[in-house]
Amino acid sequence: MRVNEILVQEIEALIQKKDYRSLKEALPEILPADLVEILYLLPTVDRLLIFRLLKKDMAVEVFSLLESNEQEELLHLFTDDNAKEILQSMAPDDRADLFDELPAGIVNRLIALLPQDQRDLMNRMLNYPDNSAGRLMTTEYVNLREHMNVASAIHHIRTVAPDKETIYYAYVIDDRRYLIGIVSLRQLLLAQDSMLVENIMHKDFISVKTTDDQEYVAKAIKKYDLLAIPVVDLENRLVGIVTVDDVIDVIDEEATEDFHKMAAMQATEDSYFSTGFFMLARKRILWLILLLLAYNFTQIVLRHYADTLKIISLIFFMPMIIGTGGNAGTQSATLIIRGLAVGEIRPLDFFKIVFKESFMGILMGLLLGIVLIISGAIMGADMIIAYIASIALIVIVLSANLAGALLPLIAKLLKLDPAIMAGPVITIIVDILGIVIYFEVAKFLLNI
Amino acid sequence: MRVNEILVQEIEALIQKKDYRSLKEALPEILPADLVEILYLLPTVDRLLIFRLLKKDMAVEVFSLLESNEQEELLHLFTDDNAKEILQSMAPDDRADLFDELPAGIVNRLIALLPQDQRDLMNRMLNYPDNSAGRLMTTEYVNLREHMNVASAIHHIRTVAPDKETIYYAYVIDDRRYLIGIVSLRQLLLAQDSMLVENIMHKDFISVKTTDDQEYVAKAIKKYDLLAIPVVDLENRLVGIVTVDDVIDVIDEEATEDFHKMAAMQATEDSYFSTGFFMLARKRILWLILLLLAYNFTQIVLRHYADTLKIISLIFFMPMIIGTGGNAGTQSATLIIRGLAVGEIRPLDFFKIVFKESFMGILMGLLLGIVLIISGAIMGADMIIAYIASIALIVIVLSANLAGALLPLIAKLLKLDPAIMAGPVITIIVDILGIVIYFEVAKFLLNI
Repeated sequence: MRVNEILVQEIEALIQKKDYRSLKEALPEILPADLVEILYLLPTVDRLLIFRLLKKDMAVEVFSLLESNEQEELLHLFTDDNAKEILQSMAPDDRADLFDELPAGIVNRLIALLPQDQRDLMNRMLNYPDNSAGRLMTTEYVNLREHMNVASAIHHIRTVAPDKETIYYAYVIDDRRYLIGIVSLRQLLLAQDSMLVENIMHKDFISVKTTDDQEYVAKAIKKYDLLAIPVVDLENRLVGIVTVDDVIDVIDEEATEDFHKMAAMQATEDSYFSTGFFMLARKRILWLILLLLAYNFTQIVLRHYADTLKIISLIFFMPMIIGTGGNAGTQSATLIIRGLAVGEIRPLDFFKIVFKESFMGILMGLLLGIVLIISGAIMGADMIIAYIASIALIVIVLSANLAGALLPLIAKLLKLDPAIMAGPVITIIVDILGIVIYFEVAKFLLNI
Repeated sequence: MRVNEILVQEIEALIQKKDYRSLKEALPEILPADLVEILYLLPTVDRLLIFRLLKKDMAVEVFSLLESNEQEELLHLFTDDNAKEILQSMAPDDRADLFDELPAGIVNRLIALLPQDQRDLMNRMLNYPDNSAGRLMTTEYVNLREHMNVASAIHHIRTVAPDKETIYYAYVIDDRRYLIGIVSLRQLLLAQDSMLVENIMHKDFISVKTTDDQEYVAKAIKKYDLLAIPVVDLENRLVGIVTVDDVIDVIDEEATEDFHKMAAMQATEDSYFSTGFFMLARKRILWLILLLLAYNFTQIVLRHYADTLKIISLIFFMPMIIGTGGNAGTQSATLIIRGLAVGEIRPLDFFKIVFKESFMGILMGLLLGIVLIISGAIMGADMIIAYIASIALIVIVLSANLAGALLPLIAKLLKLDPAIMAGPVITIIVDILGIVIYFEVAKFLLNI
């Protein structure tokens, strides 16, 4: 799996020696996914050279595996004939992916290079919403008719196999292209040659609509352990299939999106390095500014306790107790957000969660309070203040647990993305709550 | 995809009416993955009843899809004959999964119910490390020999298909069971009947070892878009395959593990509700105590600035600037940790990252400083202090970005899990740094 660094050096040596014949012979030995990693390590001019030496099938496969910014760079360098040849042979879903990332002007020029039917298909696919099943699907699937027998179905599959993304499922449609059944190649191979497709096909199959979100598609494939899922249009006509390899990428993408949102960033689908500097700055700064503005509430609260703040030793414990509260809240929020994302927590579990998190908060608060007192004693802290801090800590951890658990659930009920109610947002709420709780406890116990 | 609530009600009605005949007829109509969700909504006694009414194949499939704590509960209620029947028919990887979660005493009793060959296989699988390819693999794959021709290979596949987890790849082994090639069913169907397997099989295939971590297996399947990957032992003999559906679960599990670690929790593989209260408390409290102890440094630092703290209005800005620093650091850490996890950032990119994060930190710090001054003016803050805070903020955001980016990279270089260097750990470091920077800037500018 590790790219052979030696391979890169050998390729570079052949290029330097201009020994293109040996290079051309060596390239087909490399797996496309490995060649992609090798290309990333070579300068652009050498990438172009390697593409010229690849056989068409492999060139198309390697090109499809590149990141979109690399594809764009190469397309600019290709001749129109070259670009045309590769674009025409790409799978429709890979092509739609690429066009999605390019500026509209370039897309129009490139679409014009395609034959009419592919052009229509592209225009149709690009009209589906971002991240929908319609964007993700391929139209290269196997069709069968219900009255075919098994022998002729298998014969048909063998005939059309070279052009299809998967041949392991075949889709049975009627005259109006309505999907009426699915049959797996395994079922066909196990059945008698004379049996009819309609008698062995699954009629209670799972399908998705072109407009369904890719996350929904991924969940369906995952739940039912499928290799592919059919996509139907709003009139229930079969228009494509989504295969499991594309869904794996979606699962990673959706997790990355959640990681970013939970760190208070607008989600980006591109990788760290392929996201431009200012694009990335923009995605980060908006949330940081919003959160900074929210921190003004801590100022208001602290001004309110200006007199209490004169007891300097109270301040010594402040970062510790609001920080610990923030940590507990971040834990709760993460558990709930992830549970909601993988579908094992439902908003209906509201009361069970409140119950569990409350008890957990009290237990953890008690333990942390004890640790605080012991470590305070060792550190030579003002013990009166340490007792105040530990009592406040119990209340703060309990509140933090509840805030961390409830806010994602409330977001979900309001049809918002629970992932935005993660660490940073919880921390600020716990900071404000924590300061109030701490100083109220202090005022009460110190009688001021 | 949504479980039909009506279906649950209908099933409950049939159970109440004791109309088991209708129930028995209705059950095979439900997809196993849906029936699992329905079972979770029914009381245990009804679950047992439904299992008695299911045909064996479906019972095994549904049982395999249940969470391990549910499986354990049912096994206690099954008769020994019942348990034996289900255990014997489960796929080896599902069975290893279950045994992994059960107490050793019960496992020994259950293993004794299996025939000798399955018993040996289980003992061998359970000896592989946790989360390794050996645990994840199934032994139900199709073998071919190199000298077979295509027609007899297809005939062989049709014969053995019912017992195999996938028939879409076949694995070619020699006399010593060494894996020498892989051929897909698609290739076989496209080839002439008289061709030999050895002439069409892929010889440059990807395989993993029994001891390889499941994350490595998932990355290989993802990278090469495979439906299954062969697993070989340390002597390179073929012992099993891992299929893509199991890998999808691994990808989700690994992401969940990272989410938990990044929220400063010990990772748990079980779901929120199936993790016991005290188990979950233990996984959370250890990190919270460690972080609380680390917060003692903020106390030491604050004591050092006891005189400066007498300027109460300095304290008003403290939560805001250390909180904002923590947020910026959390963003950087998350970007780097996720980038490392999906393999698009390598430790080699060290300098590129330092460069990008430094400039990003200065730019974001400047913008945030301006927002701080404006919002301070609106809020009627002490403007001298607001200027001090905004200057400190630039340095703090820069330091936070660098800490957030570098600590995960350093962890990776030290072969530690980068995910532990996330939000909570970064926040505490930025809190300490932030307090020092803020009060040093204040002392310098206020000339004290």
